Amino acid sequence: MSGDPLARSFSAVRHATRALVEPLSPEDCGGQSMADASPAKWHLAHTTWFFETFVLERAQPGYRAFHPGFRVLFNSYYNSVGEQHPRPERGALTRPSLDEVNAYRDHVDEHVAKLFENQAVDEELAAVIEVGLHHECQHQELILTDLKHLFSRNSLDPVYRSDDASEEAATAPPLEWHHFEEGLRWVGHPGEGFGFDNEFPRHRVQLGAFELASRAVTNGEWRAFMEDGGYERPELWLSDGWTTARAEGWHAPLYWRREDGAWTALTLAGVQPVRDAEPVCHVSHYEADAYATWAGARLPTEFEWEVAAAGTPLRGNFVESGRLRPAAAVPGRVPSQLFGDVWEWTASPYTAYPGFRPAAGALGEYNGKFMSSQIVLRGGSCVSPAGHVRASYRNFFQPHQRWQFSGLRLARDAA
Amino acid sequence: MSGDPLARSFSAVRHATRALVEPLSPEDCGGQSMADASPAKWHLAHTTWFFETFVLERAQPGYRAFHPGFRVLFNSYYNSVGEQHPRPERGALTRPSLDEVNAYRDHVDEHVAKLFENQAVDEELAAVIEVGLHHECQHQELILTDLKHLFSRNSLDPVYRSDDASEEAATAPPLEWHHFEEGLRWVGHPGEGFGFDNEFPRHRVQLGAFELASRAVTNGEWRAFMEDGGYERPELWLSDGWTTARAEGWHAPLYWRREDGAWTALTLAGVQPVRDAEPVCHVSHYEADAYATWAGARLPTEFEWEVAAAGTPLRGNFVESGRLRPAAAVPGRVPSQLFGDVWEWTASPYTAYPGFRPAAGALGEYNGKFMSSQIVLRGGSCVSPAGHVRASYRNFFQPHQRWQFSGLRLARDAA
Amino acid sequence: MSGDPLARSFSAVRHATRALVEPLSPEDCGGQSMADASPAKWHLAHTTWFFETFVLERAQPGYRAFHPGFRVLFNSYYNSVGEQHPRPERGALTRPSLDEVNAYRDHVDEHVAKLFENQAVDEELAAVIEVGLHHECQHQELILTDLKHLFSRNSLDPVYRSDDASEEAATAPPLEWHHFEEGLRWVGHPGEGFGFDNEFPRHRVQLGAFELASRAVTNGEWRAFMEDGGYERPELWLSDGWTTARAEGWHAPLYWRREDGAWTALTLAGVQPVRDAEPVCHVSHYEADAYATWAGARLPTEFEWEVAAAGTPLRGNFVESGRLRPAAAVPGRVPSQLFGDVWEWTASPYTAYPGFRPAAGALGEYNGKFMSSQIVLRGGSCVSPAGHVRASYRNFFQPHQRWQFSGLRLARDAA
Amino acid sequence: MSGDPLARSFSAVRHATRALVEPLSPEDCGGQSMADASPAKWHLAHTTWFFETFVLERAQPGYRAFHPGFRVLFNSYYNSVGEQHPRPERGALTRPSLDEVNAYRDHVDEHVAKLFENQAVDEELAAVIEVGLHHECQHQELILTDLKHLFSRNSLDPVYRSDDASEEAATAPPLEWHHFEEGLRWVGHPGEGFGFDNEFPRHRVQLGAFELASRAVTNGEWRAFMEDGGYERPELWLSDGWTTARAEGWHAPLYWRREDGAWTALTLAGVQPVRDAEPVCHVSHYEADAYATWAGARLPTEFEWEVAAAGTPLRGNFVESGRLRPAAAVPGRVPSQLFGDVWEWTASPYTAYPGFRPAAGALGEYNGKFMSSQIVLRGGSCVSPAGHVRASYRNFFQPHQRWQFSGLRLARDAA
Repeated sequence: MSGDPLARSFSAVRHATRALVEPLSPEDCGGQSMADASPAKWHLAHTTWFFETFVLERAQPGYRAFHPGFRVLFNSYYNSVGEQHPRPERGALTRPSLDEVNAYRDHVDEHVAKLFENQAVDEELAAVIEVGLHHECQHQELILTDLKHLFSRNSLDPVYRSDDASEEAATAPPLEWHHFEEGLRWVGHPGEGFGFDNEFPRHRVQLGAFELASRAVTNGEWRAFMEDGGYERPELWLSDGWTTARAEGWHAPLYWRREDGAWTALTLAGVQPVRDAEPVCHVSHYEADAYATWAGARLPTEFEWEVAAAGTPLRGNFVESGRLRPAAAVPGRVPSQLFGDVWEWTASPYTAYPGFRPAAGALGEYNGKFMSSQIVLRGGSCVSPAGHVRASYRNFFQPHQRWQFSGLRLARDAA
Repeated sequence: MSGDPLARSFSAVRHATRALVEPLSPEDCGGQSMADASPAKWHLAHTTWFFETFVLERAQPGYRAFHPGFRVLFNSYYNSVGEQHPRPERGALTRPSLDEVNAYRDHVDEHVAKLFENQAVDEELAAVIEVGLHHECQHQELILTDLKHLFSRNSLDPVYRSDDASEEAATAPPLEWHHFEEGLRWVGHPGEGFGFDNEFPRHRVQLGAFELASRAVTNGEWRAFMEDGGYERPELWLSDGWTTARAEGWHAPLYWRREDGAWTALTLAGVQPVRDAEPVCHVSHYEADAYATWAGARLPTEFEWEVAAAGTPLRGNFVESGRLRPAAAVPGRVPSQLFGDVWEWTASPYTAYPGFRPAAGALGEYNGKFMSSQIVLRGGSCVSPAGHVRASYRNFFQPHQRWQFSGLRLARDAA
Repeated sequence: MSGDPLARSFSAVRHATRALVEPLSPEDCGGQSMADASPAKWHLAHTTWFFETFVLERAQPGYRAFHPGFRVLFNSYYNSVGEQHPRPERGALTRPSLDEVNAYRDHVDEHVAKLFENQAVDEELAAVIEVGLHHECQHQELILTDLKHLFSRNSLDPVYRSDDASEEAATAPPLEWHHFEEGLRWVGHPGEGFGFDNEFPRHRVQLGAFELASRAVTNGEWRAFMEDGGYERPELWLSDGWTTARAEGWHAPLYWRREDGAWTALTLAGVQPVRDAEPVCHVSHYEADAYATWAGARLPTEFEWEVAAAGTPLRGNFVESGRLRPAAAVPGRVPSQLFGDVWEWTASPYTAYPGFRPAAGALGEYNGKFMSSQIVLRGGSCVSPAGHVRASYRNFFQPHQRWQFSGLRLARDAA
Repeated sequence: MSGDPLARSFSAVRHATRALVEPLSPEDCGGQSMADASPAKWHLAHTTWFFETFVLERAQPGYRAFHPGFRVLFNSYYNSVGEQHPRPERGALTRPSLDEVNAYRDHVDEHVAKLFENQAVDEELAAVIEVGLHHECQHQELILTDLKHLFSRNSLDPVYRSDDASEEAATAPPLEWHHFEEGLRWVGHPGEGFGFDNEFPRHRVQLGAFELASRAVTNGEWRAFMEDGGYERPELWLSDGWTTARAEGWHAPLYWRREDGAWTALTLAGVQPVRDAEPVCHVSHYEADAYATWAGARLPTEFEWEVAAAGTPLRGNFVESGRLRPAAAVPGRVPSQLFGDVWEWTASPYTAYPGFRPAAGALGEYNGKFMSSQIVLRGGSCVSPAGHVRASYRNFFQPHQRWQFSGLRLARDAA
């Protein structure tokens, strides 16, 4: 591999993905527990398909696909590339095997490496590769997120890595309110470093005076909400939220269980007690909104969050290491910053910024076409690799979804 | 009835509702064709329930309900009032009869009239009555909207009022672009006259320079979109929109039919030819968005629309008459203004304004709890009574819904 | 009307149908509460469509349809006649009005009367008319059955005819077992009088020795089943039955309610106490089968039932009067016979007799094509007109359906 | 292993099951493509669970379960044993691994072997073991049946064993009709050898004179049906069948494909041409019934079939070898007998024989509780092990199901 920093990043990210599935059997890598989630094997192949389709097929004249059938099997949603295997049936793809998918990764990695060696990576191609690496980082997080859901459907309570179990946390710090003045603020990607098309263009928004909580809502606070009848009081809920909560029988965050009078939760390190000091996780936007109403507050808009975050130095093991931190999958620390514990639901539907232009070609399908009925989350979670963590990054999911590592932080109008 | 202007409005609005159903049989008033729509009889009763529950029960000590069972039957979605009859089964309510519902209306109208006569309407009560009248105006529009859908499911092609059939329209005026400068603008209700809680508080937003079309998109333009494969090209559509359009088999606006090589459409005046000069109607947000993409433009945000409309004098028979215009149900004029032909889908999800406070008590359920997964429409349609028509009014529906009188107007970023 | 007995029957049956809806408003006649049930107005029109389509269009050269659109609207399931209005949307047909449907009935009745007067009814046509009259008798029962379901969905507890309320019944007679020897028995229609194609051909079946209960299972016995955990014990249930009972939350027969510690049931005469001596009604085949298992017995096969019934004289007001008995809609008598209280679920899936030939032409769609996944019921109910009551008559419904007046009688193998 | 014939059978059947999955990877063994089908790994474990639960737990005092969690995971539908893992989510069980399941098999096999060695298998236990072996034979067939469906959902067209590909068959023999006289016939298990509870008691039925085709319907004949519009003519179909065929878009048997103007079909040996001489396979009861109507014939009742088969010597490689024949998964021979090519849909719903008694205890859930809404198939297919093949064996599936190796044979009333 060359001395090109992009080439080094390519190598590092590709290796990190494979390292994530090392504790897993081929069978673990093939399971799918719901339509929203995909098998790890599929993530491994799809991220490879991305480089094959958007890099090798474009940059290597006469490049011959590793397997012609993969074009359909591992296309997620790019209509301009062609047909796709039905998403809810990804778990039925027992072929190709994990070994074959790893061979596919090797094959594509070698060809991309050759592009670097041959200095065939011009600026345009470099930009596509960079997108591909950030794309792969997103799927690294999804591998763990989807695996957690898969394991949650198995009454044997499988464990991903038991050494990730966290220590009993100290008491959560008291909640403080940070004040922000009314005014016209810049939001959106500042221009330096990578950003997805949906973070652009940078533009100004007028914000009223507001206050933002110093930390995320904790499990202990969430239990107070539950004990105060939070899940049984329609006046706290959005109409869609109430309907969903009733239909789904929600009475606690996803993965929580009541055992012998105590709350436990499934984690990637197995079933653990619910610790009051840790941030609440795996709640939907509907639940987050109901909690905020109950607390006499509200969720911040994505711009309030971003303005607050933009002044926050990025610290901690998580970011410094530039990779998954050791205790990756287990929310375990007392939160002290805006990044890296749980994705934080905002009050903002996911829409285009003024002047938004989707990326050219098939990559234009990456973000823009999903700007409907989704809600922006900001921050990053304990399973997010470094690539996700920046003040302008916009994650987005549907308001009923709970299998992401999602929590919330309160905001309120300033007096 | 007293000389109180509110009392006169009460009388006028209540009579206007009943006038709307005069062409209908009791059977017509009882039919329900889908869960989103309600029978006219239910609208007649529900609007009455509103005054009984929120006015008479509060203001008249010892008021005895007209029928105790109506509290459940005609409660739409007010959880704080109690249980509700299931919405999809409103059409199965053959009892009470239309006669009984009319007696219910008489009963409640008389009691409210007495409140006015006895000068028992204080400022707080007047505010609730005013909300009730605007609420009833909304249901006047829904009566015709839902009736149109009901008739569309009957192969006998029923006609509501044949005298509403419109003349062949002149050629649509050429589309012009109005320019608006970048800057900080006031939006939200200006304070004078009635507004719903979701129009407040008035606040400032920063808008980039933009251009807004001088008129709505026409049927003729929509046909060009169709003929250019608009319904078959996924690259034009939001992901949810494409999925919905495929699943539902959309190939033209709702109510359009292909007969002997020509397009016709069901209207409240019966089946009519589709006229190129008229604004396209009964399209979903998904279709509107796809059209705008195809046209190289976009939908305006609700604030762009409002800023443009706030400077527009409200003219025309529609508004001057202060009531439904004679040709109410039939889109027939060449559009010349921002109000009154079709509701215009914007690009804006329906969310709370900064500092939004829901109305107190049960009326707080009126608007706020629906701020999820809906899109704002602005303007007003040919079946809108005057009460809907103001620059700050926010209508909202789900992006897949098409049975409203909904169309679109294009916008674009200024060079 | 002529002296022809068929002409007199035609007149009598057609009038009886209309008499059934006299207590109902046009709105009551238009309501539909589920896809399985139809509005009374639709029954009135469909039975008329039957005579128009299968009698007038065939026998009257140049007959002009009363309304060309009715051919589709009131076709139930005859694919050979053409398209059909979607069954779940029959309640949305506010047009034609009840008045128009009555005019349709008058029109068709007059034309059929003329056929009789002109002696234009040959043997083949007479056979079709006879089928039409028995068909109309079936719909007379359905009018009341569907109306009961419609009213059950209305929290106002509407009443069809309050004078039908039954007296408190005496104690049910003790259950006795009638013994039947093993042997080869004739079953199927004996040839004299009317029978549907599915009752033919008469043929022999070998029956083992068996015993049949002297009366139907009563409400009191059913309560013992409930109190013994009958609805909570999977070992008593067919697999499909258990799944259905769990999914639907069944804990008592349809229309039963628990009020202030006592069981009541909705009847066509309003809400009445559940009386122990009366036969249990509105239970599904699944429930009937579970009850029989609990009771250490089984359901009789349709041939066991028929062999027993063929020797039973048809007695009682019900049959003698040749029409609906006064207390039609209310199960009220202590049962004493095999006919006329509740339809009795048998153990027999509905299949073709050996040598079965469907009727020729469109009428071949009447019975044969439904011989799949349905269960035979025998006997007749308190809302059955005389035309249903004969030993060989085969009623059939799906095993989960409960809105029919369906109960059960026990059988067991003879020692 | 002892000299006990049952012990030898136990060893043979258990080994045969494992041999079936030898060509498969652990991933292949874990996939599930629909709720009706199960992963091969699940079949391997469930058949083992059967012996653990019904043999070891009963016969070995102090037996300790291999894994306490398996009691729930691998219970199919025995409510009397306890809870069950949801059937549609069996594919999400990535744990236990295939290796662990094989260890589970070894463990249970060793313990059962010890029972034989210790002469601890009394008559009652032997009967349960025998049921378990026949149960396992059923699951051997299901392993291949479900695998075929799984592979059919993968656009890579996986192959199970390419050496199973069949030669081009000779011309099918001409269809002849075998005549059977009217009379009283014995049906049901004759008493010698194994039979399931649902084959008892042997009893007499009266059959009319009938004729039965000398062979199953062939692909060539089925194509004639298709070319004559068989899938587009409602008059040929049962009502439920027509509705299902329209909703599912059926136009050919399952697994058939139209490629370059020719019909091919997916088989376990890969995609093969459809050969006219072979019996048609993978059709539903609805399709079989429609075909028979089109052919002017009907399906035989299960008793007609049995009477005919009871006189037929069991011949051929398939039965002689006492195990899966080499070309197991590929219908390839010209049919010459009543057994072993395709399961044959009969006209008979699956019900209890007169005097039927379910087996005692939990095994009573094996057959009886499924006697609802299913249709009997007789014979045996190319993937049936010997244990299924006897004249009195009653297979049963729902009438819409097509993934079984199911075809048909015609019958007709004798002149």
